[in-house]
Amino acid sequence: MGRMNYKARQKKAVRRVGKLAEALLVTHLPDVRYLSGFTGSNAALVLVGAKAMLFTDGRYTAQAQAEAVGTKVTIAAKSAVVAACEWMEAAGVTRCGFDGTQTTVAALTRMEAGLSKAFGVKARREMFVDVGALVARLREVKDEDEIAILRRAALLGCGLFDHMLGFIEGGMTEMAVAAELEYRARLAGSEAMSFETIVASGERSALPHGRATLAKIPKRGFVTLDFGVVVDGYSSDMTRTVHMGRARGPVKASAVPGERDVYDLVLEAQESAVRAVKPGASAGDVDEAARSVLRRAGLDGFFSHSTGHGVGLEIHEGPRLAAKQTQTLEAGMVVTIEPGVYLPGSFGLRIEDMVLVSAVGGEVLTPSPKAWIEL
Amino acid sequence: MGRMNYKARQKKAVRRVGKLAEALLVTHLPDVRYLSGFTGSNAALVLVGAKAMLFTDGRYTAQAQAEAVGTKVTIAAKSAVVAACEWMEAAGVTRCGFDGTQTTVAALTRMEAGLSKAFGVKARREMFVDVGALVARLREVKDEDEIAILRRAALLGCGLFDHMLGFIEGGMTEMAVAAELEYRARLAGSEAMSFETIVASGERSALPHGRATLAKIPKRGFVTLDFGVVVDGYSSDMTRTVHMGRARGPVKASAVPGERDVYDLVLEAQESAVRAVKPGASAGDVDEAARSVLRRAGLDGFFSHSTGHGVGLEIHEGPRLAAKQTQTLEAGMVVTIEPGVYLPGSFGLRIEDMVLVSAVGGEVLTPSPKAWIEL
Repeated sequence: MGRMNYKARQKKAVRRVGKLAEALLVTHLPDVRYLSGFTGSNAALVLVGAKAMLFTDGRYTAQAQAEAVGTKVTIAAKSAVVAACEWMEAAGVTRCGFDGTQTTVAALTRMEAGLSKAFGVKARREMFVDVGALVARLREVKDEDEIAILRRAALLGCGLFDHMLGFIEGGMTEMAVAAELEYRARLAGSEAMSFETIVASGERSALPHGRATLAKIPKRGFVTLDFGVVVDGYSSDMTRTVHMGRARGPVKASAVPGERDVYDLVLEAQESAVRAVKPGASAGDVDEAARSVLRRAGLDGFFSHSTGHGVGLEIHEGPRLAAKQTQTLEAGMVVTIEPGVYLPGSFGLRIEDMVLVSAVGGEVLTPSPKAWIEL
Repeated sequence: MGRMNYKARQKKAVRRVGKLAEALLVTHLPDVRYLSGFTGSNAALVLVGAKAMLFTDGRYTAQAQAEAVGTKVTIAAKSAVVAACEWMEAAGVTRCGFDGTQTTVAALTRMEAGLSKAFGVKARREMFVDVGALVARLREVKDEDEIAILRRAALLGCGLFDHMLGFIEGGMTEMAVAAELEYRARLAGSEAMSFETIVASGERSALPHGRATLAKIPKRGFVTLDFGVVVDGYSSDMTRTVHMGRARGPVKASAVPGERDVYDLVLEAQESAVRAVKPGASAGDVDEAARSVLRRAGLDGFFSHSTGHGVGLEIHEGPRLAAKQTQTLEAGMVVTIEPGVYLPGSFGLRIEDMVLVSAVGGEVLTPSPKAWIEL
């Protein structure tokens, strides 16, 4: 991986802070990584004008020097964030922006306590300004380096799905399926899974978040695979639902529709939402593109979650593609499109792609087949 | 797994709140799981007297009913925590405890905004009382059910280490070693790895947190394996360092000591700290038991982290076993004991057990061999 342009990102963050504060204190680890390249588990980054200061602890002396780009590294004996606050005081900073969505009430108290008595009560109260998820919002629009990594992560996921089609058999446990998937992911270079692998089979397919269990893959019924890998820190995310054996038709004298019918509807909803992705579209419009397809079939009540989310250094990032969300999609965002239908006690399914908002529309980064598959 | 005694835990938590507040709002997910059994990714739990109310969203309707014990489940259309606050207002709660170490500044604002205008400005300001990490402190002392699970998780880890001794060979990548370990973990019933597997070989063994990379296992040198599995939600954590080929002696005309000498010292430090574990011992004493062994050999400057930490529903819990920590160990705590020595540019190693604080002393839950192993 080439070095990212961390300095450019730092500059953008400082520009976003603008007149809200003189400095920006960053403690959320994906934000620290985004702005400096440092991947350690304890860090506080301070941006003041063109200057960047990274504070971490003794476990990371070598790693911080190797990873952190465009920042001066300080190894703190005490808390990294307290060391950062002391440094700011010494540097004459009087107003420091922080992210209230990532800073706990206790951490804010610690930050304030990190200032000396000489700082004064009033000055202390005015020192820290909640500027919100400013860096997270920057991260929503990916740069070329990030898009290249996300493409690789997404394709690695597709290769795994392809492998799994030849592996899954009725009678093996969901755990065994997850084990194989995760093993192959590692061998293919994934650093980790981006979340607990979902293998939801048979009746369990009706659970939107059915992590793999010791339940056996049925001889006949759905298997939903929802998984992600991590490549150079970036997450992939995809879902496919395949069918073991032949689809069941509608259950007579009940409201349960045919498996194949529901599959085709979810696929139609998914593709409709993918088509709705373009710069300038609202997040709510994309959600509605999927939801309206299911509504026309009377199944929207069984689509119990939102249509998608941004993905990058974290598995769940902005924008949130949900009903009535007014946020506008911008070129460079990478989002999931993942409608599903879940019929409790019967079956469920979901189909999910990662989609890049390109200048002209949505580009699917996970081109694995989505048409009906019987194993 | 049998049902845990959630009601008893809820009662203890309420007792700890005492007169600080009338209700306790719990949003940290491991705390929610500990008190109710619910494992979903979005939840707010309210305890008022003997009453427990769980708020989550539509994705978890079936799961919450199946999992949550001794609590009434409400599926919220909006934010779970806002729904919880509205419920408390309707129930006449005027002082609600929350955990400032787990609640963000933004979440607190949202909680306050969740109260109606009728609630009044002053009442709103007085509604939320930071009671700190009260549930996390309860969780430090494990009950019988938890200890049984932690034993199983620890032994599963030991079985994996045993398997890896027959698998690791010079020339394979660290990633391939991690892949095999994680694959076997899954097949053996682990739900997930409790953290990113560390495989640090050769010079990389000098990195305390060296996640597996594409670096090759050397024909001669250390390989540190630090990994954990998750069983029924509980994490294991263990480290062993093995040596490929014969140990190197001290490097003449340099300060680098012999590999075997350093190994034996770290082992002595580790066993010394394990012996120091008992009810009534202070966390700092246990740390000192390890650190003093390395200090006598002039190597304490290369032991750049603390000696250990509690482990349970989270991989890092209290108590923190570090220099000068005054917290007293109690029977039922489960802690790691993991001293290490890291010589930058040369080599490093760490040895780690999970240790139960039993009534009479420390009981090692990870009995894998710790004596020098050459592969």
